[in-house]
Amino acid sequence: MLDHAETSTPPPVFDAESWVCPLPLRDSPTIVMAHGGGGAMSGELIEHLFLPAFGAAADAALGDAAVVEVGGTRLAFSTDSFVVKPLVFPGGTIGELAVNGTVNDLAMAGAQPLVLSTAFILEEGTDLAEIARVAEAMGEAAGTAGVKLVTGDTKVVDAGHGDGIFVNTAGIGLVPAGVDIRPERARPGDVVLVSGDIGVHGVAVMSCREGLEFGTTVRSDTAALNGLVAAVLATGADVHTLRDPTRGGVAATLNEIAKAANTGVRLDERALPIPDAVRDACGLLGLDPLYVANEGKAIAFVAAQDADRALDAMRAHPLGARACAIGVCVDEHPGMVVARTALGGTRVVDLPAGEQLPRIC
Amino acid sequence: MLDHAETSTPPPVFDAESWVCPLPLRDSPTIVMAHGGGGAMSGELIEHLFLPAFGAAADAALGDAAVVEVGGTRLAFSTDSFVVKPLVFPGGTIGELAVNGTVNDLAMAGAQPLVLSTAFILEEGTDLAEIARVAEAMGEAAGTAGVKLVTGDTKVVDAGHGDGIFVNTAGIGLVPAGVDIRPERARPGDVVLVSGDIGVHGVAVMSCREGLEFGTTVRSDTAALNGLVAAVLATGADVHTLRDPTRGGVAATLNEIAKAANTGVRLDERALPIPDAVRDACGLLGLDPLYVANEGKAIAFVAAQDADRALDAMRAHPLGARACAIGVCVDEHPGMVVARTALGGTRVVDLPAGEQLPRIC
Repeated sequence: MLDHAETSTPPPVFDAESWVCPLPLRDSPTIVMAHGGGGAMSGELIEHLFLPAFGAAADAALGDAAVVEVGGTRLAFSTDSFVVKPLVFPGGTIGELAVNGTVNDLAMAGAQPLVLSTAFILEEGTDLAEIARVAEAMGEAAGTAGVKLVTGDTKVVDAGHGDGIFVNTAGIGLVPAGVDIRPERARPGDVVLVSGDIGVHGVAVMSCREGLEFGTTVRSDTAALNGLVAAVLATGADVHTLRDPTRGGVAATLNEIAKAANTGVRLDERALPIPDAVRDACGLLGLDPLYVANEGKAIAFVAAQDADRALDAMRAHPLGARACAIGVCVDEHPGMVVARTALGGTRVVDLPAGEQLPRIC
Repeated sequence: MLDHAETSTPPPVFDAESWVCPLPLRDSPTIVMAHGGGGAMSGELIEHLFLPAFGAAADAALGDAAVVEVGGTRLAFSTDSFVVKPLVFPGGTIGELAVNGTVNDLAMAGAQPLVLSTAFILEEGTDLAEIARVAEAMGEAAGTAGVKLVTGDTKVVDAGHGDGIFVNTAGIGLVPAGVDIRPERARPGDVVLVSGDIGVHGVAVMSCREGLEFGTTVRSDTAALNGLVAAVLATGADVHTLRDPTRGGVAATLNEIAKAANTGVRLDERALPIPDAVRDACGLLGLDPLYVANEGKAIAFVAAQDADRALDAMRAHPLGARACAIGVCVDEHPGMVVARTALGGTRVVDLPAGEQLPRIC
């Protein structure tokens, strides 16, 4: 080592005072897969990197959908990029996910989704036929959801610097007068409903990734939930919070809501609607269905006196036949989700650090 | 070869009748870089693949920005993904491009840009410090443009299946009453204005890619043009069309407008504002400045009687000091752009097939 003490310009000094470990939960100075998992590490990337870096330009908490007022009209605005692998899986393609995912983010803000943008990042060498298949799926999904694809963009990256097809969609929805649905509004006493079987999408993608087979074919539940949400809201039920439990599954969604509203959530594990095939696949893979992604399910926090009405409306909808109540919002353990197990004990349902199954959507 | 004539099931037949060459201009069955270049091959991907595949769900021509009416309010809505390489270049980063690009698409529809979404596709192993630098640039650019970043998404792909940082932004703007600015409205007699020097962004990126040096440092012109557009519109000038000549440069933009409006465009090459450094770099690389991308310039088609007023307003704005008239819209050669050369001859300025410089934005 050179001794700089005698030279005229002092050597550069490592400023330990100003050095901050970039993210508190994990001290990796680089991106790891879990940063994209929708769990704690995704949250800290937003909280400790994006929000401070965006500074004053960042409005609100950069949630799944923002509600903004434009010219006297309340709009919901949301975006998602999709990087699911493989592009085609039982029950859908990246195309349905891209349309339904943004439609659902808008619907979970209580909005009527109206228009979507579509932006593709295509890898050089990708089959045009594969792109056409994905685009066709997007058109059909948009038709089913009743939204129009109105603007778009296509970029191409050189082979080896992408992965076939990445799709981004952003969407605009109209928030009807009087509707105010967001995580912060969950309150003790609310009944927690889920619109149907959980864990299906994650297992469907997993089942065809790397050739795993579980006997039965589990098909993704990807679906647009705006119709189901509209049916619930039409009953006049006092719905406080809606959320689609995608990356990180029901566990991540309930934790996010508990934290945002500063309430506790008590879950009844025996009440969770888990298909046998999902339970078997999760057992085999060492996964917990509570943490597996869904792409066509809604979680609703509804005022107790209206819970039955909301549940009936869900069940009367084709996408909600297996809806049920799975827990309640409580005063105790604010910010935490606690499950009553099948054996009568309790366990804390943590926010996952990342996603058990990367690139699930 | 086996003869299947005698077997019970007939062999699969190649159905030449139903086989359609996927895209008319080039018969590659896979994506090539030029499909992302903003030229003819990008256009045919939209026209012959995306629009038919989207079917009835596709509204309008999926242009740079859509104008939609929501709850009685006219909104502009636009999206762009950014894949520029390298992420940092003289005069900016992918962050400024992502914010200014979408702000400008909205401004070119005559809208006041209000809110943006931000969606990241990050590659495993990317430095957090690099992401923070890009996010900081986005925050600053949003502040300068006067827009808020209100919703977002982050996905991570495994190392080797992305390229550091891809950013998508989508944006919403408010279209003031009475404003109707779009390519179809260009008409014979209009004066064609450009808000300043052309070819700068493309040369800036090129200059630092693969270590090329051109003596002078050319810095990207990335900038938000909503203020300049507002200043022009405030004069009351009858502006028919606005467009920012990004991928494919001024040539692609003028061709797009000529085609949309079914008019001809006559360009005066001697009037084009091309900095010496850009001219030199283009000469060295065999590029035509007319085809090089800009990220902070507007092309305006203005009714002849208002052209001076519009030009004065541009020149009075800090981003338009070198604005000038570069041509006129004509009845002749509808759909074509013809340039009068410095030597007094004429040449057809074709729509480029792809982009001379891939991954320029």
